[in-house]
Amino acid sequence: MAKSMSLLWGAGSPPCWRVMIALEEKKLQGYKRKLLSFEAEEHKSPEVLEVNPRGQLPAFKHGDHVLNESLAACLYLENQYQSQGTRLVPQTPGEQALTYQRMFEGITLNDKLNAVIYPQEERGDSALKRRREALGAELQLWEKYLEKVGPGSYLAGPFSLADVTVFPSVAFAFRFGLPAGRYPKLDEYHGLLKGRASIKTSWPPRWLESPQGYQVLHDL
Amino acid sequence: MAKSMSLLWGAGSPPCWRVMIALEEKKLQGYKRKLLSFEAEEHKSPEVLEVNPRGQLPAFKHGDHVLNESLAACLYLENQYQSQGTRLVPQTPGEQALTYQRMFEGITLNDKLNAVIYPQEERGDSALKRRREALGAELQLWEKYLEKVGPGSYLAGPFSLADVTVFPSVAFAFRFGLPAGRYPKLDEYHGLLKGRASIKTSWPPRWLESPQGYQVLHDL
Repeated sequence: MAKSMSLLWGAGSPPCWRVMIALEEKKLQGYKRKLLSFEAEEHKSPEVLEVNPRGQLPAFKHGDHVLNESLAACLYLENQYQSQGTRLVPQTPGEQALTYQRMFEGITLNDKLNAVIYPQEERGDSALKRRREALGAELQLWEKYLEKVGPGSYLAGPFSLADVTVFPSVAFAFRFGLPAGRYPKLDEYHGLLKGRASIKTSWPPRWLESPQGYQVLHDL
Repeated sequence: MAKSMSLLWGAGSPPCWRVMIALEEKKLQGYKRKLLSFEAEEHKSPEVLEVNPRGQLPAFKHGDHVLNESLAACLYLENQYQSQGTRLVPQTPGEQALTYQRMFEGITLNDKLNAVIYPQEERGDSALKRRREALGAELQLWEKYLEKVGPGSYLAGPFSLADVTVFPSVAFAFRFGLPAGRYPKLDEYHGLLKGRASIKTSWPPRWLESPQGYQVLHDL
């Protein structure tokens, strides 16, 4: 069935990575995939626009079904292949609530990271300063969440869609210089997950060649 | 069971409205709810911050389970009460894929609306112009989606979480002056849904008193 799936992706993009982790966890290896270059603007190519009219990656298809929104793809894969691979939405109400809650909070985390790492509009120093402060406050919130679940735990108890979708943003933050010493719980979480098979297999290839990005978050 | 649910909400906020529609559709009437005022900054009150540390509404709880992210609350309610009220996630792969896809695209739609209606940072004319153009392009995308599903259809075939979560943003756009003549499919969709029981019951009370907001989108 993975043969009827195709993914157009960009290396290091947390949304793309989420889908790739979910595919691994659901044992859907063997799907067609093609790495495109953001730098070469390949995400604005006709090939992508045909699947994703906003010209963004991932552009994912299962047969004729288009799932470009990474969290939508993750929910769909879990729902369609519930009994295959890792169960990614816990059934106990408390763990399930926490899984969904953290998944969506992860969108906010990723938006706040992007607003600092890749500011799209020209902004004054004061706007950027506010965005950096907002990101710092956001990251401290995740420190507290991880403190609450305790050491060695995943975001919602068992490994779940919360981890599939939030981990790429955490890895992204560290790649861009987040100081581990000031975010010890996030550092521990990063360490806990980076060796997991689904994550290791889908690790952005360019990150292996040059493990550090521009250290824009080093003083956060 | 609805008695163990509580919702702190703000009138006219699409995220709050999503949760209220989902509760109605799942026949979970009778939950505790409290209307707070954004103008009076009640969303930054200790009562909200205790449930939602970002100081945003909705702040929703089911027993001890916190679900502040509106789409997380919708997914949780559907999953926990699958056989109660309206089935909100279709089981056929195509309709299910479309439901999830449109739900998440709805976040983008709502963000682009907010960026024009409530710009949070001071911006020059050129930035606002770009944002208005981006919103216009986004709305044309939804026109095309609706054209594709055909007249009288919901976003993903049967009424689903896609409608629960996207409709409030559509209603919000028309309240703020979106010209029906230039967005005929969205106008038709708005007309199709505004009489639905779950939506009528949860219609923002202030909108009944003064049906039109500031007409900021009239020339879009």
